[in-house]
Amino acid sequence: MNVLIVHAHNEPRSFNAAMKDLAVKELDMLGHSVQVSDLYAMDWNPVASAADFGDRSNPDYLVYALEQRHNHNQKTLAPDIQMELDKLLWADLVIFNFPIYWFSMPAILKGWIDRVFVSGVVYGGKRFYDRGGLAGKKAMLAITIGGQPHMLVRGGVHGALQDMLRPILRGTLAYSGMNVLPPFVAYHVPYVTGEERSMILEEYRQRLQVLDTLPPLQFVSLDQFDEKLNAIAMPSSGTRP
Amino acid sequence: MNVLIVHAHNEPRSFNAAMKDLAVKELDMLGHSVQVSDLYAMDWNPVASAADFGDRSNPDYLVYALEQRHNHNQKTLAPDIQMELDKLLWADLVIFNFPIYWFSMPAILKGWIDRVFVSGVVYGGKRFYDRGGLAGKKAMLAITIGGQPHMLVRGGVHGALQDMLRPILRGTLAYSGMNVLPPFVAYHVPYVTGEERSMILEEYRQRLQVLDTLPPLQFVSLDQFDEKLNAIAMPSSGTRP
Repeated sequence: MNVLIVHAHNEPRSFNAAMKDLAVKELDMLGHSVQVSDLYAMDWNPVASAADFGDRSNPDYLVYALEQRHNHNQKTLAPDIQMELDKLLWADLVIFNFPIYWFSMPAILKGWIDRVFVSGVVYGGKRFYDRGGLAGKKAMLAITIGGQPHMLVRGGVHGALQDMLRPILRGTLAYSGMNVLPPFVAYHVPYVTGEERSMILEEYRQRLQVLDTLPPLQFVSLDQFDEKLNAIAMPSSGTRP
Repeated sequence: MNVLIVHAHNEPRSFNAAMKDLAVKELDMLGHSVQVSDLYAMDWNPVASAADFGDRSNPDYLVYALEQRHNHNQKTLAPDIQMELDKLLWADLVIFNFPIYWFSMPAILKGWIDRVFVSGVVYGGKRFYDRGGLAGKKAMLAITIGGQPHMLVRGGVHGALQDMLRPILRGTLAYSGMNVLPPFVAYHVPYVTGEERSMILEEYRQRLQVLDTLPPLQFVSLDQFDEKLNAIAMPSSGTRP
């Protein structure tokens, strides 16, 4: 597989960075091709703005998604966006390696999504969920978080982590058509011992070895909805997510 | 009330900006004091990095939250952060006015949270949810979204909008102790007529007039958990969110 790792941590010697380094080495050993976008090292600009477009379909009024489509067609997207979009389209699997900030991505990574998940390529019109532009690709989050597992389950103080990650897992990655693998989560990272860190890295190594066969999370299919996106009544509709 | 509006849209003449402008005018007429942080106009830097700290408790290894605490205590936070933190602490109500990007905030706003919701002030240790550092303040999202209401309810193609907003409503605002008012949502914005836009703005005006009395959303209380954040068994625990 071609694997793109998008990494977003501001400390190069962090545990989070060690996960990224391990993935590069392990995936290479397994025969995959790996590219890394190390967003802090690249000084990535996360702000979606008019400066992202070399040409404008409407110079007077910015509608970001419309200019994404226009500039993709004209090949006038900002060079930093085009470079990342090329990596995204090259990849069979994208690993997002980041520390949880506010139950979500650090802004530098959110802005990679905002700018690189280009309308007209990644999604657009009725091309979303299982008809999304990135259909056939896989995605996986590899995340570090301060909390402990018992805080991040249903009935725990924060509820289920997967519910907190819904706008990413479902609203972004599944929306774009990707097969979303279960997140790899390193819990309680600022507080664990060196020995525990080694154990987590070993768990991550084992996860990386089974990426090919790991079943993806299940999300909605547009087949369950009509042209106006009203739900189609089905005998089994009670089980729809 | 002191009201801070944090606004994040890259088109000054957008409908989203019109909502912000309306809020400034209406809240002023109602006798509130209003400040606006217009993040695009301010050229706000959303990237949480070592450059945010004038002093370092550990110069060799960056733990962002620990340096936030240290630099807040030393009064050495970057001036742009300190200025926004002062506004946040001044406010009785914070309105986050933004277009939904990927079922979440645009990166420029996510980075306002990442950098300004400073550990040691906004949260830290066991100071979160109803014991959070911003307890007593109110927060409200004022958002624009392309989708229509029937797509954003339980059983709709994206499920309930509030479930998508969970990391913001619960994981960020309620986590910080704020009373979170129901979001004001302008649906289908890129596609509605001028008349419909006027109607939405009128609805928003009416919402702004009842902010004082609007009941907040209900979230978890730390009273439901023990010192290790294990759930305390309670007769009514079945209704815990």
